[in-house]
Amino acid sequence: MKKILLAGTIAFDEITTPFGHSGRIPGGSAVYAALAASLFRNKTGMISVAGGDFPSVYLQMLEDRGLSLNGVQIFPNEKTFYWKGFYYDDMNRRDTLVTRENVLRKFRPVVPDGFKNADIVILGNLHPGIQTEILDQLTDRPELVMLDTMNYWMETAPRLLRQVIERVDLLLVNEEEARQLTGKTHPLHAAADILEMGPRYVIVKQGEYGAALFGEEGVFYTPAYPLEILRDPTGAGDTFAGAFAGHLSEYDAVGFEEMKNALVCGANTASFTVEDFGTRRLEQITREDLETRMREFIDMTRFPLQEKYKSV
Amino acid sequence: MKKILLAGTIAFDEITTPFGHSGRIPGGSAVYAALAASLFRNKTGMISVAGGDFPSVYLQMLEDRGLSLNGVQIFPNEKTFYWKGFYYDDMNRRDTLVTRENVLRKFRPVVPDGFKNADIVILGNLHPGIQTEILDQLTDRPELVMLDTMNYWMETAPRLLRQVIERVDLLLVNEEEARQLTGKTHPLHAAADILEMGPRYVIVKQGEYGAALFGEEGVFYTPAYPLEILRDPTGAGDTFAGAFAGHLSEYDAVGFEEMKNALVCGANTASFTVEDFGTRRLEQITREDLETRMREFIDMTRFPLQEKYKSV
Repeated sequence: MKKILLAGTIAFDEITTPFGHSGRIPGGSAVYAALAASLFRNKTGMISVAGGDFPSVYLQMLEDRGLSLNGVQIFPNEKTFYWKGFYYDDMNRRDTLVTRENVLRKFRPVVPDGFKNADIVILGNLHPGIQTEILDQLTDRPELVMLDTMNYWMETAPRLLRQVIERVDLLLVNEEEARQLTGKTHPLHAAADILEMGPRYVIVKQGEYGAALFGEEGVFYTPAYPLEILRDPTGAGDTFAGAFAGHLSEYDAVGFEEMKNALVCGANTASFTVEDFGTRRLEQITREDLETRMREFIDMTRFPLQEKYKSV
Repeated sequence: MKKILLAGTIAFDEITTPFGHSGRIPGGSAVYAALAASLFRNKTGMISVAGGDFPSVYLQMLEDRGLSLNGVQIFPNEKTFYWKGFYYDDMNRRDTLVTRENVLRKFRPVVPDGFKNADIVILGNLHPGIQTEILDQLTDRPELVMLDTMNYWMETAPRLLRQVIERVDLLLVNEEEARQLTGKTHPLHAAADILEMGPRYVIVKQGEYGAALFGEEGVFYTPAYPLEILRDPTGAGDTFAGAFAGHLSEYDAVGFEEMKNALVCGANTASFTVEDFGTRRLEQITREDLETRMREFIDMTRFPLQEKYKSV
């Protein structure tokens, strides 16, 4: 069974969308990614940090799903990282109202011995310095190192960020981040520039429109699963990353063809997350639910090839 | 060989995009659709009107491609319909600067005898009253009647428009038009409402993100061909409609599976049009160019199905 090591935040989120207010609920990039990865056959370990105010029942729920929390530090006298956000009617737009780093400021990541030889590593959205510390603790070269980041680090720690980008295999960005990172407006040009920076692969997430994978083997596009109701986009990208890695963890080898499937699977898993506030929906779903959605998706996007195109 | 009857405008366009100014060039919904349809094996007849100022060499070019212009009226003492538009950096946004109806005001469509039994009819963007007059002249029920329209007619002739919508098989709209027509923000809900109005099928065009087909048989999504350079979006929707009909004209029967292929083919044909100003690129390309692009598209969007999904 392959090992996934994933790093990211554990958080309290407070979210307002056109569908309502969440109140103060558990979230964070590591949590969404871990829940998604746990839908697949693998051993997943989390690297993160929480304060004493974070509910232990929630952490217990994660352990009950087979996730290893040995890399999760709890500081009893500190408060958990807090994020408050507001989504506009067009939920592609959001404002951050409050960010309180709290316990994140004390965080020095420690990779548990059992995960220093992880097969797949997800460096979720964190300070690039912390992402670097994690990479430095690995003993074996993983098959795939994935990096997620955001505009904030491009502005506040551009040099450190570039150094991490150089060392990873796959960078995950949305269209706006791709633009900001490269200065190129067109996703194709931005992706080409990112491939020059070091990574062998780039995924550009396009929200409700899908996602694109770029590599030296070519380009692959997938639409998103069309949802009737999108209640809260928070965690969609992290869910995507966790499911992408989870899907890949079930293959012997990781190549471009496997990544195409993983991209589709990641997008479909993320489509559950946004159906409700926080991790509620993602906690509920089973592997069977995901496979049912995959079947619906395939039915909606696959067309019978004309004879002349069958050799493609 | 099947017959396509298509109605729409012949125009002079003057277009500004971030890539430059077109000057005064030939265009119009009937012209783009006819050029696209002529890439396929069929007999296509145009219903339109032009003034004496429209270049006869351009009309000759259309005839040389096998298009029947018997339904095109020329008013020597009138001026051709004129449209001046400005596209923003985000080319999904445009302003109409000038519209001069000119000869369009005198237009009473006459369907030539040879096309009164057309197999596929495209009612391109025109006053819904004119679209009705065309429908009334048909002697046989076509296999498929497609309707294109725009916000302008929803505002100025809503009742007449609703009456035409009731009579057609397939409505083509973009996301904004779908919203305006139904008051529903979500494309899925808007499409469901439109299917209640009469048509058996709706296509919602999403520009650079692709297109969706809705019918009682289900839903089908396709991404768009990813272009490095988009110079002028004018005519993309009309090209799409012409290629969709053209593709279908090569099949014996028109069903949902054939329409999936036609949707992909329409989107790929439209991707050529927007590579240059006006009809320039669309005039150049051959069937072979289109099939090459289709192969590239299939390569970029098709993924190997896991065993468990092969029965879908």
